[in-house]
Amino acid sequence: MGKAKQFIGCDKSFDDAKIVLFGAPYDATSTYRKGSRLAPAAIRVESDGIETYSPYLDRDLGEISVHDAGDLKFTSPDPAPVVYGVEAQTTKILGAGKFPIMLGGEHLVTLGAFRAVHKKHQDVCIIHFDAHTDLRDDWDGQKLNHSTVIRRCFDILGGAHNRIFQFGIRSGERTEFGFAESHTHLCKNNFATLPEAIKQIGNRPVYFTIDLDVLDPSEFGGTGTPEAGGVTFLELLDATQAVFKSLNVVGCDINELSPPLDTNGASTALACKFLREVLLLIK
Amino acid sequence: MGKAKQFIGCDKSFDDAKIVLFGAPYDATSTYRKGSRLAPAAIRVESDGIETYSPYLDRDLGEISVHDAGDLKFTSPDPAPVVYGVEAQTTKILGAGKFPIMLGGEHLVTLGAFRAVHKKHQDVCIIHFDAHTDLRDDWDGQKLNHSTVIRRCFDILGGAHNRIFQFGIRSGERTEFGFAESHTHLCKNNFATLPEAIKQIGNRPVYFTIDLDVLDPSEFGGTGTPEAGGVTFLELLDATQAVFKSLNVVGCDINELSPPLDTNGASTALACKFLREVLLLIK
Amino acid sequence: MGKAKQFIGCDKSFDDAKIVLFGAPYDATSTYRKGSRLAPAAIRVESDGIETYSPYLDRDLGEISVHDAGDLKFTSPDPAPVVYGVEAQTTKILGAGKFPIMLGGEHLVTLGAFRAVHKKHQDVCIIHFDAHTDLRDDWDGQKLNHSTVIRRCFDILGGAHNRIFQFGIRSGERTEFGFAESHTHLCKNNFATLPEAIKQIGNRPVYFTIDLDVLDPSEFGGTGTPEAGGVTFLELLDATQAVFKSLNVVGCDINELSPPLDTNGASTALACKFLREVLLLIK
Amino acid sequence: MGKAKQFIGCDKSFDDAKIVLFGAPYDATSTYRKGSRLAPAAIRVESDGIETYSPYLDRDLGEISVHDAGDLKFTSPDPAPVVYGVEAQTTKILGAGKFPIMLGGEHLVTLGAFRAVHKKHQDVCIIHFDAHTDLRDDWDGQKLNHSTVIRRCFDILGGAHNRIFQFGIRSGERTEFGFAESHTHLCKNNFATLPEAIKQIGNRPVYFTIDLDVLDPSEFGGTGTPEAGGVTFLELLDATQAVFKSLNVVGCDINELSPPLDTNGASTALACKFLREVLLLIK
Amino acid sequence: MGKAKQFIGCDKSFDDAKIVLFGAPYDATSTYRKGSRLAPAAIRVESDGIETYSPYLDRDLGEISVHDAGDLKFTSPDPAPVVYGVEAQTTKILGAGKFPIMLGGEHLVTLGAFRAVHKKHQDVCIIHFDAHTDLRDDWDGQKLNHSTVIRRCFDILGGAHNRIFQFGIRSGERTEFGFAESHTHLCKNNFATLPEAIKQIGNRPVYFTIDLDVLDPSEFGGTGTPEAGGVTFLELLDATQAVFKSLNVVGCDINELSPPLDTNGASTALACKFLREVLLLIK
Amino acid sequence: MGKAKQFIGCDKSFDDAKIVLFGAPYDATSTYRKGSRLAPAAIRVESDGIETYSPYLDRDLGEISVHDAGDLKFTSPDPAPVVYGVEAQTTKILGAGKFPIMLGGEHLVTLGAFRAVHKKHQDVCIIHFDAHTDLRDDWDGQKLNHSTVIRRCFDILGGAHNRIFQFGIRSGERTEFGFAESHTHLCKNNFATLPEAIKQIGNRPVYFTIDLDVLDPSEFGGTGTPEAGGVTFLELLDATQAVFKSLNVVGCDINELSPPLDTNGASTALACKFLREVLLLIK
Repeated sequence: MGKAKQFIGCDKSFDDAKIVLFGAPYDATSTYRKGSRLAPAAIRVESDGIETYSPYLDRDLGEISVHDAGDLKFTSPDPAPVVYGVEAQTTKILGAGKFPIMLGGEHLVTLGAFRAVHKKHQDVCIIHFDAHTDLRDDWDGQKLNHSTVIRRCFDILGGAHNRIFQFGIRSGERTEFGFAESHTHLCKNNFATLPEAIKQIGNRPVYFTIDLDVLDPSEFGGTGTPEAGGVTFLELLDATQAVFKSLNVVGCDINELSPPLDTNGASTALACKFLREVLLLIK
Repeated sequence: MGKAKQFIGCDKSFDDAKIVLFGAPYDATSTYRKGSRLAPAAIRVESDGIETYSPYLDRDLGEISVHDAGDLKFTSPDPAPVVYGVEAQTTKILGAGKFPIMLGGEHLVTLGAFRAVHKKHQDVCIIHFDAHTDLRDDWDGQKLNHSTVIRRCFDILGGAHNRIFQFGIRSGERTEFGFAESHTHLCKNNFATLPEAIKQIGNRPVYFTIDLDVLDPSEFGGTGTPEAGGVTFLELLDATQAVFKSLNVVGCDINELSPPLDTNGASTALACKFLREVLLLIK
Repeated sequence: MGKAKQFIGCDKSFDDAKIVLFGAPYDATSTYRKGSRLAPAAIRVESDGIETYSPYLDRDLGEISVHDAGDLKFTSPDPAPVVYGVEAQTTKILGAGKFPIMLGGEHLVTLGAFRAVHKKHQDVCIIHFDAHTDLRDDWDGQKLNHSTVIRRCFDILGGAHNRIFQFGIRSGERTEFGFAESHTHLCKNNFATLPEAIKQIGNRPVYFTIDLDVLDPSEFGGTGTPEAGGVTFLELLDATQAVFKSLNVVGCDINELSPPLDTNGASTALACKFLREVLLLIK
Repeated sequence: MGKAKQFIGCDKSFDDAKIVLFGAPYDATSTYRKGSRLAPAAIRVESDGIETYSPYLDRDLGEISVHDAGDLKFTSPDPAPVVYGVEAQTTKILGAGKFPIMLGGEHLVTLGAFRAVHKKHQDVCIIHFDAHTDLRDDWDGQKLNHSTVIRRCFDILGGAHNRIFQFGIRSGERTEFGFAESHTHLCKNNFATLPEAIKQIGNRPVYFTIDLDVLDPSEFGGTGTPEAGGVTFLELLDATQAVFKSLNVVGCDINELSPPLDTNGASTALACKFLREVLLLIK
Repeated sequence: MGKAKQFIGCDKSFDDAKIVLFGAPYDATSTYRKGSRLAPAAIRVESDGIETYSPYLDRDLGEISVHDAGDLKFTSPDPAPVVYGVEAQTTKILGAGKFPIMLGGEHLVTLGAFRAVHKKHQDVCIIHFDAHTDLRDDWDGQKLNHSTVIRRCFDILGGAHNRIFQFGIRSGERTEFGFAESHTHLCKNNFATLPEAIKQIGNRPVYFTIDLDVLDPSEFGGTGTPEAGGVTFLELLDATQAVFKSLNVVGCDINELSPPLDTNGASTALACKFLREVLLLIK
Repeated sequence: MGKAKQFIGCDKSFDDAKIVLFGAPYDATSTYRKGSRLAPAAIRVESDGIETYSPYLDRDLGEISVHDAGDLKFTSPDPAPVVYGVEAQTTKILGAGKFPIMLGGEHLVTLGAFRAVHKKHQDVCIIHFDAHTDLRDDWDGQKLNHSTVIRRCFDILGGAHNRIFQFGIRSGERTEFGFAESHTHLCKNNFATLPEAIKQIGNRPVYFTIDLDVLDPSEFGGTGTPEAGGVTFLELLDATQAVFKSLNVVGCDINELSPPLDTNGASTALACKFLREVLLLIK
């Protein structure tokens, strides 16, 4: 294989970087429309089409130091080793005192990153932007699945209402919404209760996981399970700025772009721009 | 042919159901971009990808009783027998004391369903959500056409301003808008005057016909004549809830999804979700 | 070659028309995703799918007089003769006392039209709707490029802050935004400061250049560099009405539709409708 | 509507032409994948991309005289008036002593042209290139259907084995092949028996109808019912040359290109080139 | 879920059938372009578009008895349980004295079917049509992979040159071709040595596995790893007829159609027709 | 920009390599369907999907030494500097005693490479595989155009019939074929006269330019001007082997893949495989 492309402006070495970006190209538990395994590569290629400068933040990727560590390599579709692989990579980045940011892949990969973060920060909370609750206990008997990932994180955390904060949610089974009622903070459809959540979290560390299907399919159609009634890009940007500016974020991931479903390229372009904004927001 | 798929959660027999869903796979009078004849089948297949539970209504398809009667079969492209076929099917459903809900197809199929409803409810009103007035008197001499369907309904109803209520309209010829001025209640672009219409209709029975191109093409691009400047999914959902909650709806149809034009599947997914909401709203 | 199609309702002869429409099918300096050279032809073909009547303005193309002069022919991809060709055509139209409206093509073609307008109206201002500043001084050493076009116009105009008014801008290099700060009026993301700009311009003549990527990619995905966070069609329509109703517009262009990237046809349909509105707004 | 495009090199007036080309943009009885109604327009637009010169025949469209009469207009999807419209147009062309060549559309349109030819030439034979027999007696009770068209022609001709000659056939019901055995000359898969057929026909007049799906889907995928195992372009060209050079062809049609199914444009390009060859072969 | 569609003409019950068809919708070890998990469903839907009658064989699906058992359900992407599931299903069909025919999915599923066949027929040989050798010993350490499947079958069989017969092969690593030289009968590019293989096999039982990418990409582009230089549909049909007519075939599978890559539907149509021919050839 | 990908197995340094591969990503004079500027990048990315081993030649890329020099950078669409850029790069490679192989891009880039080769080898001949003659003297007055490239080479060479040898040609104007009759060796449609040409050329040096549209569009649809009636991949491979094995080839190029028109990826895959074969054939 030839050398991989890097995300624009992420040209520091591992040692020189404060932030380490890596891809988790996995989508094998997606049961419906696949393709998110191709997202990290597509985002890197597309990144040549955007600017390094953010007019939203008046900041430039040239001012920060990011290492693009490329993609993890998964040789089997079995989910367990995939989650372990992500955990090991995240542990390594955290151990070096750097900020880990992961590009999925399907949402299950979050579990590995979260495990690593939780080992270092026992009091960590989760901010979860998504159209779906991802709170199923299993999917046809399988515990490791993209639709169970937040439930698996809950298994690690326990507690009720004050560890997991979900926003933009608009799809799930009745039992999932029932579970959320007594175990998580769940804000339907939008970010209305984000200020309240920020207050509740206070200065505890935060893992921030963003399923891009929280966006309306009109703005982000390139994803496996588009759910009408989502948020706009500017709303997502505002909420993301609020999270990073008000909270102690210690790790982050961006998931569920599916390039084969991005028929006109606009979703991939949006993901690039959003990743740039997130990189520029990391403290 | 093998057995047809059913819409998710619509597994009751005709006798056991309160609601009967059927498809009218016809698009032969569409002169421009076709494909709506394929909508009922596509919506059924896609329905496996959504949940039976609505977080908007906190209700589940498992709690109601719907029979999916499959698609009507049209052997000739000639519109007259198509309209009669739809009328016969609707008459049968109404005769059994059940609620008819039809999936188009192009908008002309509404005429058949409306004829059946009108025979049973002489004082019926129409609520019409659409980007287009559909008030032409003929199309190149043809009386039965997707662009004349509301005019044909008017021919049955007569009266002025208090029988037909149109919303979201943003395209038509000058003569159509002129006709509307003295013969229908027409609300341009959105649902601003819906509360007023609800008041005027009172407890008269209502036939509710929804051309999904009332939505903005950004949210619903999979349709033959996309018209910029439409409503959002959440606005459509709110207006639809208002209609069902405030009025005595006796029949309904959802039209004009064109699967071949739905390049990333988001329009079909939206139509599925919207149909679920409508089914859960029927009283 | 057979005869070219005309835009709907634009069937006057050159002599009988007050408005002259022409295409500039050029996209050779676009470095990323091309296709805008095909826009004028696609818009003409698609125009058969819209009405001549605008319910927004209650006006019809039948009431005004437009000549569709077809497309300019460019035999070499070299940008200099292209810009001259556009200038010559615009000069001819202005010389006959008619209003020139050009369909791009990439944005560079604006330079030719603006040169012609400036020769006739030395005090002309520019209203520029776009996602991008287009203020680079060169692109890899090239002075004539779609990303330098407004800078080239500035070279003609000089002055600071009171000749070029930019709206909807949300992408560019830091140096471009820096240049804008001291040399143009730049309104990020939307049209918030348009009333103020209108006041500043007063009764000076205005050249109005519209890069359709000012729209959000959800509504207008068929363009080479989609930038999330754009304006809606109705916002663009309102702002465009404000410009034409309050100011002395002496020439206009609409750019950057790329039909091959318009996967479901909705962008081309929007461009047709927008062009109809603009034609009906010209005084 | 603006003026229609002409096929390249077909710029003679009706009076000056020896050959008259017209389109029959109809596909309403197609029950599966549609789109052939868009073929005549697509072929004309694409024709700008080919040369007027044939290196196969060393002849140029500039040397012959063809009038492109544009497309017939069908206002209803009902097949009966469509067939009559085609018949009237063909009768008019034959009456003026010119050669009629029709671009479909679905294959049913052939019936109209054949009726007109048969009125003038009672002893006419049919050469039929197709993947399908088109010999059903009805389709779900409908007599006028794209799958019954050759059977309807047989109804006019009667006789056995010496009036209708079918080639390339590789799909149909058992009853269709059974009918063919006693009523037509049918050559499966290829043109193996064409020389024999030419001998049998002798100097009787011939109507030549070509369903382009006789080609293998690898070369012509842009059609509604692709059937693997077809002939190559060069085999089709050879057979077509043999027909025109050896027989007295008095009318011709080319059917079943479906542009929306022609995903890379190669089928439309092939159809253009094939039409050029046919025009140059007409005596 | 609603009821699944059946392949056309395969409407017998399990008990009444001589042949049992089932799908293995799995593609998780495919590392490049996926989609073959969707093939069984796509083939069933598309089957409504073909005839039940084969003009090649003069036989009709109505004359034979096939049960369509639907698709196996795989809840985890892990390959081991998938292979076991296929084995169990095949064992059940063989145990009932019926002929098993499987629709993949990726080629790995063959391993499960072959294990079941081998348990019943210890002296079974393999006929393998494919563009690829599938003889790698592992893929990045993984033993169960679509590129190792024939090697895994060899592990079961052992022996050299007289158990596994490969045709159409035109891609692989040097080591794979090296392995084939001393362990299998391998015919590059085409079926030239099939008669010889048939003679060598004699009356031993045969498992027949067909990777459809043995076809040239011009005829069958809808597959994950298209390899130029393949066989034609008619060549495949001839070879398949030879296998079934001359040998004692006891089980069969057809793999590697990828519907999302079948941009114009021609590959899926070909697969339907080919499956019909295979069903009609089973003795 | 991140680092570029290399073609598989081409990982030698410039100094260590015998063969130097480079891309010429230019398509600005293409007037119809563009996209060939994207071919070099697409071919490199796709190359990860093929093997380094050729079963046709029993040779592996690991056995030869190739440097992938990446793409030339063209900042203006003007053709003259593009041709000079290609000439400079080729001169540099030849000067270092290495074999230059170029990936287009449109066919015009051949002129630059040929100029460099001609300076070194005054007696060089051209072998030209193409669907088009490329012998126009100008295109609308432009001398540098993809349709004039072989004529420009002729201008350098002069002579008649014994310097330029064209194969597979099946499209052009009458004047081009007329020119060829007295000035080049032109073989229509296929490679029938290649043995004769090889004899005529003898041991003179040869520049070998391959426009991939010489292939039939069924095998290679991803190109701007597909011409039915072309050669197969295996025919092209045979002819290419004959050229390299019998003649003293001193430079080579492969042109006119257009990735955006390669709807299912099969053309890009074919180009990768063909490039591998060519690299393995270079002596």
